[in-house]
Parts: sequence; structure tokens; C-alpha cells
Amino acid sequence: VPSSGRVAAYSDAVFSIIATVMILPVTHTVIPENKDLRSTLIRLIPNITVYIVSYLIVSGIWISHVWLFETIQRADEVVLFLNLALLMVVTFTPFVFTLLGQFSESMEYLEKYDVLPVVLFAATFMCLFGIQIVLIYYVFKVERIMKVEVVQNEDKMQQRNAMLWGAGIPMILCILAIICAPFSPLVGLIVLALIVASGAIRKWAYKIYEKYRGNRDSSMLLHINVRHRLLKEVVNKERVECFSDGVFAIVATLIILDICEDDIPTIDDVRKFGTVSAALSQHSNIYVAYAATFIAVGLLWSMHHTLLHYMMNMNRLMVFFNNLALACIGLSPLAFKMTTAFEDHKYGNNSMTAVQFNTAILFLAAIFQVAVWVTALFHQNVHVTQEAAYSGRDHAYITIKLSIFPLLSLLIYFMSFASEAISVTVFNAMLLGSPALFLLLRVLYPQCTKFCSRR
Amino acid sequence: VPSSGRVAAYSDAVFSIIATVMILPVTHTVIPENKDLRSTLIRLIPNITVYIVSYLIVSGIWISHVWLFETIQRADEVVLFLNLALLMVVTFTPFVFTLLGQFSESMEYLEKYDVLPVVLFAATFMCLFGIQIVLIYYVFKVERIMKVEVVQNEDKMQQRNAMLWGAGIPMILCILAIICAPFSPLVGLIVLALIVASGAIRKWAYKIYEKYRGNRDSSMLLHINVRHRLLKEVVNKERVECFSDGVFAIVATLIILDICEDDIPTIDDVRKFGTVSAALSQHSNIYVAYAATFIAVGLLWSMHHTLLHYMMNMNRLMVFFNNLALACIGLSPLAFKMTTAFEDHKYGNNSMTAVQFNTAILFLAAIFQVAVWVTALFHQNVHVTQEAAYSGRDHAYITIKLSIFPLLSLLIYFMSFASEAISVTVFNAMLLGSPALFLLLRVLYPQCTKFCSRR
Ligand SMILES: [K+]
Ligand SMILES: [K+]
Ligand SMILES: [K+]
Ligand SMILES: [K+]
Ligand SMILES: [K+]
Ligand SMILES: [K+]
Ligand SMILES: [K+]
Repeated sequence: VPSSGRVAAYSDAVFSIIATVMILPVTHTVIPENKDLRSTLIRLIPNITVYIVSYLIVSGIWISHVWLFETIQRADEVVLFLNLALLMVVTFTPFVFTLLGQFSESMEYLEKYDVLPVVLFAATFMCLFGIQIVLIYYVFKVERIMKVEVVQNEDKMQQRNAMLWGAGIPMILCILAIICAPFSPLVGLIVLALIVASGAIRKWAYKIYEKYRGNRDSSMLLHINVRHRLLKEVVNKERVECFSDGVFAIVATLIILDICEDDIPTIDDVRKFGTVSAALSQHSNIYVAYAATFIAVGLLWSMHHTLLHYMMNMNRLMVFFNNLALACIGLSPLAFKMTTAFEDHKYGNNSMTAVQFNTAILFLAAIFQVAVWVTALFHQNVHVTQEAAYSGRDHAYITIKLSIFPLLSLLIYFMSFASEAISVTVFNAMLLGSPALFLLLRVLYPQCTKFCSRR
Repeated sequence: VPSSGRVAAYSDAVFSIIATVMILPVTHTVIPENKDLRSTLIRLIPNITVYIVSYLIVSGIWISHVWLFETIQRADEVVLFLNLALLMVVTFTPFVFTLLGQFSESMEYLEKYDVLPVVLFAATFMCLFGIQIVLIYYVFKVERIMKVEVVQNEDKMQQRNAMLWGAGIPMILCILAIICAPFSPLVGLIVLALIVASGAIRKWAYKIYEKYRGNRDSSMLLHINVRHRLLKEVVNKERVECFSDGVFAIVATLIILDICEDDIPTIDDVRKFGTVSAALSQHSNIYVAYAATFIAVGLLWSMHHTLLHYMMNMNRLMVFFNNLALACIGLSPLAFKMTTAFEDHKYGNNSMTAVQFNTAILFLAAIFQVAVWVTALFHQNVHVTQEAAYSGRDHAYITIKLSIFPLLSLLIYFMSFASEAISVTVFNAMLLGSPALFLLLRVLYPQCTKFCSRR
């Protein structure tokens, strides 16, 4: 029976890529150059919401996957196949999201034509939760694949039942949605939206059950206590690293794929402009913007690397903040598209809006990393290594490193209101120069600590 | 100084995704339905060649990366930043590949217009090898980031020089290509093609050097002995796993992205066909084909998982075969496109050709995994765990598991010549049923070994 490490790592790669690619339908929307970018952005809000929601749903399923695999020591052939089936359904979710997004813009279409998009969406997630339930059953049945501490734990069956309820209630909601949708697609969608609140539903269901049957089975309540779940349950950080690496890696790829599709001159372009160089130079700002975006993403990765290096483990709240940071990083292909469309201040307001959108995303991506750090410090003896704790050698270093991007992006954001000269060109130049700040910190920090300790 | 594990894992994710996405320009070529698929395939040969070449180049750079990181114990800030710079250039390579592919179709264009595609290609790779050289210099200069066994090794500087030559000669060739291209783009391309033969060039350069200066520095010759490099140098398998997982994960994603882009019905389609269901059922074969392709890729992953589970480490030749297997798996988005275009036998010859292309890819992907296995068995005491060696408990199991796909695909390939009824429909049905073969093997194998040992 092989160890479960690689099965988990492969799943992390698939989950992270699928969670992030949902930004593509948004980036493929045309940004009209002669229209106000603010109004274009407002028009894009539903699409961006679909991206965020689908990201949170996929990452939520990833978290239950992490939770289940915390109990598995070694994955046998059955776990392997069930896991592949789960991943197959997960890779299919972008299809149902796109289909639903296409037809849910106005409820009119769904009611006039048919409810297949809603039913297909619910059916896909029903399969997903169904496979999860089979997987949970199997893992808790076959002791030789479980971790020793789980097998010896007397709360084992309680833990299993809590996991089963966690997947079971969403599955019931999916089935309900399939039943309701033919009568009213709106009701179907509302039932699906309830999945987000399935924790609360479980709590109410338990209270009703308790009232009529007496307190016989407390397994339903286990893991319901939100405070306990968010702050006390710890995950090892390797899987968070794998998932995050996947998101960071796919973001760079999505940007270059968009460039390859849109900005490679055709032979007709070359005929029109004379030479390949002339045709390419029509989009010359793209290369600077690409370097700037990649550097921003790279520095965010380097902050993430430092942050997780000093963690011993993470609780659910930290993982949640981490995932929000990654969701913002996943928006960078859209931000990149805006900076290339309105390259300099001759586009006036649009260039300013593009800078503001970019800095807002950078700020959010960085500040959610700070949130992970602050949450970790609340129980620093559990989560943080000795050097990184309050009195530790590297505490100030991590805090300063994590604050550079929030401060820098906030600065540019407010400067952009003050002057039209703070255009995309200036923004890109500042990003290109930002690695110098990080290297400066690296060089100065040991000197400062030496100086301070001498006094 | 953080450990280098995560830096390596993140690099693996980026390298694997970038190596594989070069299939996209091929899949985005339109496959005309009313034309002979064989002639379409022949027309696609240059594009497929560009994919294979770019895949091999990117994976070659990945191998040198693995080699360098074998000497690093802990990655400091400088290694981290140099590595991010390297990855930035790597993510940019799809652009120069696509640009060169667009204009190298006929040499005429390059000569008539300009040589920028060749120069940009050479310049990108010059940067890549340049950053590698700086990284090698830095790593071998700062002892605290190196592994203890490398620091204590008396051949340390020889090893460094060998690595420097390995990156230096390709860089010199890139510079030569930039100089030659303005005079003749063809000569520039030939000089670039010589990079593949840079090992041989190094050998000749050394012989000339030896003749004129006497045998003073044998570092140039180190690692030149091809037999030694391929068979004796061993890599730990974790990085091969990470790289392979990235390829497997991105393949599934590329297929679903293509489906989302091409096969989501628009509102106009729905008006035309009446309902969303009717519009979707125009492409109903896609879902079966998707499931079949995902199952094929999933089973190939499961074979790969079994194969690497029983390895202790891998030599270069095994990694090379592994990469060839992955290159074939990277072709599956193209294979998928063919099976969906010619879904059943009413397309006659084209459906037959699609099945043959699919089975050929499956066969190659599986047989290169068998090649890894056979190579490992040649020095089984070095590479293979005890249970997997000739007399081991699981030896026959692995061999049988690895043979299922080569045999099955060969069978369908030859059957497709015999009868027109062996169309895409039958092929998909056989793939959908193939997990049963693997599960059967899992169930029967312990019984058989029990029976054999009893006799
Ligand atoms: K997540
Ligand atoms: K990874
Ligand atoms: K990027
Ligand atoms: K490779
Ligand atoms: K991985
Ligand atoms: K990966
Ligand atoms: K697939």
C-alpha cells in the first residue's frame, strides 16, 4: 500500500489549477478602449463574482479533501481510483460554471428556454459530494490505510459521522435543487446557494433531532462549533504549499497564453506594418507589463514562501485567509489585461482606473497574507516557530517583508487620485523596481539587528 | 535560510505547465470535417514537431535545474530571486516559440520581412542560460547553502566547471545565432539547432584544448561521458513526481478549457435549436469522450504512481523516458479534439484515423513507462525496492499493470484496420471499461500468488 503523499500532491495540483482557471471567461471579455473602464468594470462585476464564488467552492472542496487525507496514512488502489473519479468531476466543474454563468445573466433566458444549466450544475456537485461520501465510508472501514492515531482515537466514528454529515447535507441540497429546478429555476438556484450555509443547516437539523429523540448521537454536533473549527483544528502546511504553488504557477501561464493568443502578429499584420518588428511594436508595452506582473506575482510568492517557512502548522482560519489571498492573485490576468489596454496617461481616466484596479488587487493579495500572519501570532506557540515569535530573531523581518506590498500599493492607489501622471507606465516602473526594496531589507536587516543588540 | 524543497516544487510546477501548454497552438488549428484527416495530420506535422522540440528543450532546462538543486541544501534570498528570474524567462518561452512557429513555416517570410523572431528566440534562451550561469556561480561560492556532501567533495570545483560548461556552450551558441541571423536567418536557426549537440561540441572543444595546452583541466570532460551520465548519475524521485504531476494536472485542464471555449452554446445557438438541452446535445458525444480521455490520463497517472512508488531513485535515462511518456500524454488534448470531431463510423476513414492516432499516443505514453521500468531493472539493486525486483513479491504485479495499456491500445490499433465498425464510439467504450481491467488485476493478483506459493 503506497503512502498517500503523492495522491495528495497530485490532487492539490488539480484543485489549484481548476480553482484558478475560472478567471478565463472574465479575461476573455473584450475591454472596449473608447468606453469608460469604470462602467466596463461594473458590467464585469457578475463575472468576477462567479469567479470568486467558484474559486471558494472549489477551494472549499479542497479543504474537505485535505481534512479526509489527514486521516489516511497509505492510499490503496480503491482510494486511488475513487480519488481519480473525484478529480474527474472536479475538472468538469468549469464547464457547468461557464454554462450557468452564460444563462443566469437574466433569469428570463432560463425560464424561457430550459433549466438544464441549473440541473447540470446541481448534478455535477451531487456526484462530487457522493464520491466524497463513498471515500469517507471506505477510509473509515479499512483500518490498514488509516493513520495509527486515528485508528486508536475513540472518537473515530464520531469524526467519520461529522465528515459524512459535512458532505451529506450539501448532497441533499443538490438533489433538492434538481427536483425544484424544473418548477422554478430561481428556487433551484436558491437551494444551491444554501450549500454555503450547510453548517448552520446541520446545527438546526441537530437541534430538531435532539428535541424529538433525546441526545443520543452527538457526532452531528462535532466540528459544528465554528470557533473551534476555525481556530483549533490544525492542518500540516505541506498541502497548503502545494495548493498555493499550483495557483501561483498557473497565473503566470494564463497571462502568457493570453499574450500568445492575442498578440502574436499574423502574416497579414506583418504585410500591413512592413516588418515583424513593426507589427510587434504595436504592442510593445505588453513585454514591460508582463515583466511587471510576473515580478509582482513572484514577490507575492516570495512573501508566501517566507510566511509559510516560519509556520509549524495552520488552522482553518489561516487557510481561509490564504485562499482569499490566492483568489486575488488569480485576478491578476484580468488586471494585466487592463494595464496593457490603457498603457499610459493619454488614456486619462481609464489608465487611472486600471492602476487603481491593479493596486487594489495587489493590496488585497498582500493584506490577506498579513491576516494569515496576524492570526498565527494569536496562538504563536502553536503555529509559529521560535525565531518568528514576538521575541524571536526574525519576527521584525517577516513583519516588514509582509508590509512592503500593502504600503506600496496603498501609496500608488492614493497617488493615482492626486495626479493623472501616475499612469500605468509609472505603476509598471514601480513594480519593476520593487525587488530592490526586498533586497535592501535583506541586506539592511542583519546590520540593524547587530546595531540594536550592541546598544 | 529556508530549505530548498518548496523552491524546487514551485519550479517543477512552472516548468511542467510551460512544457505542456505548447500543445495549445496545435489544438487551436481547425480540423476540417469534410477533408481527409490523414492529410490534415500530415499538415500538422510541423506544429507537432514544434511542440515536441519545445517540450524537450523546456524539460532539458528542467533537468539542469534538478541537477543544480541537487547540490543545494537551503535556498537563501539570492537563490530565490535568481530562481524567480529564471522562471520568468521560462514562462516567456511559449511566446517566442509561437512567434518562431508562425514565421518559420516558410523561410521566405523570414527573409522577406525580418529576422526578429529568430533573434528574440535566441535572446530569450541567452537570458535563460545566462541566469543559470550566475546561479551556478553563486551556489558554488556560498558554502552555507550547499549540501554537506558537496562541500566536502574534493571534485567540487570540477563539478561546478562541468555545470558551467553545460550552460556556457549553449549561451555562446545563442549569441552566435543573434550575430548570424541578420545576415541569414537560416544560419541563425542552424546555430540554434546545434544547442542539442552541445555535449558533442564540448567534447571536441576539449580535445582541441588538450592538444594545444596539455591535459591541465579535466573538468571539461567531467560528465561528458554519455554512458556515465545516462546510467550512473542518479536523481531523487520527488522532483520527477512533482514535474509529472504538473503535466498530468494541466492536460485535464487544457481539455476542459477547450470545451468551455468551443462547446458552450451561445444565446443565439439556444434560439436556433429551441432549448439549452437541444443546443448542448449537438455536441453530446463530447461528454463521453471527455470521460474516456480523463480515464485514460488517470490510468496512465495510476501506472506512473505505481512505477515510481517502487523506485528508490532514477538515472538520467529513466528520467528521459519518463519525459517522453509525458510528452505523449501532453498530446492528448489534440487526440481528444479528433475523437470529438469524428465521433462515429459514419465519418468512415476519418473516424478510423482518429482512433489510430489516439491508440498510437496511448501506446507510446504507456510503452515509455515500460521503458523506464526495463531500464530500472538493468541495475535493479540501485534503482528498485526489494519487493519490485525480479524475485520480489510485487514484480509480476507491476509488470502486468504496465503492460495492460500497451497491449490494449495495440489491439484496438490493429482491429481498427480490420473493420470500420471499430470507430471512436467503440474506442471510447473500451476506455470507459478499462478501469475494470486494473481492478480485476488488483483483486486477482493476491489470489494467484497465494495459489502459486501453495503448489
Ligand atoms: K483554496
Ligand atoms: K507543487
Ligand atoms: K504573471
Ligand atoms: K520533462
Ligand atoms: K506537487
Ligand atoms: K504540481
Ligand atoms: K483529460
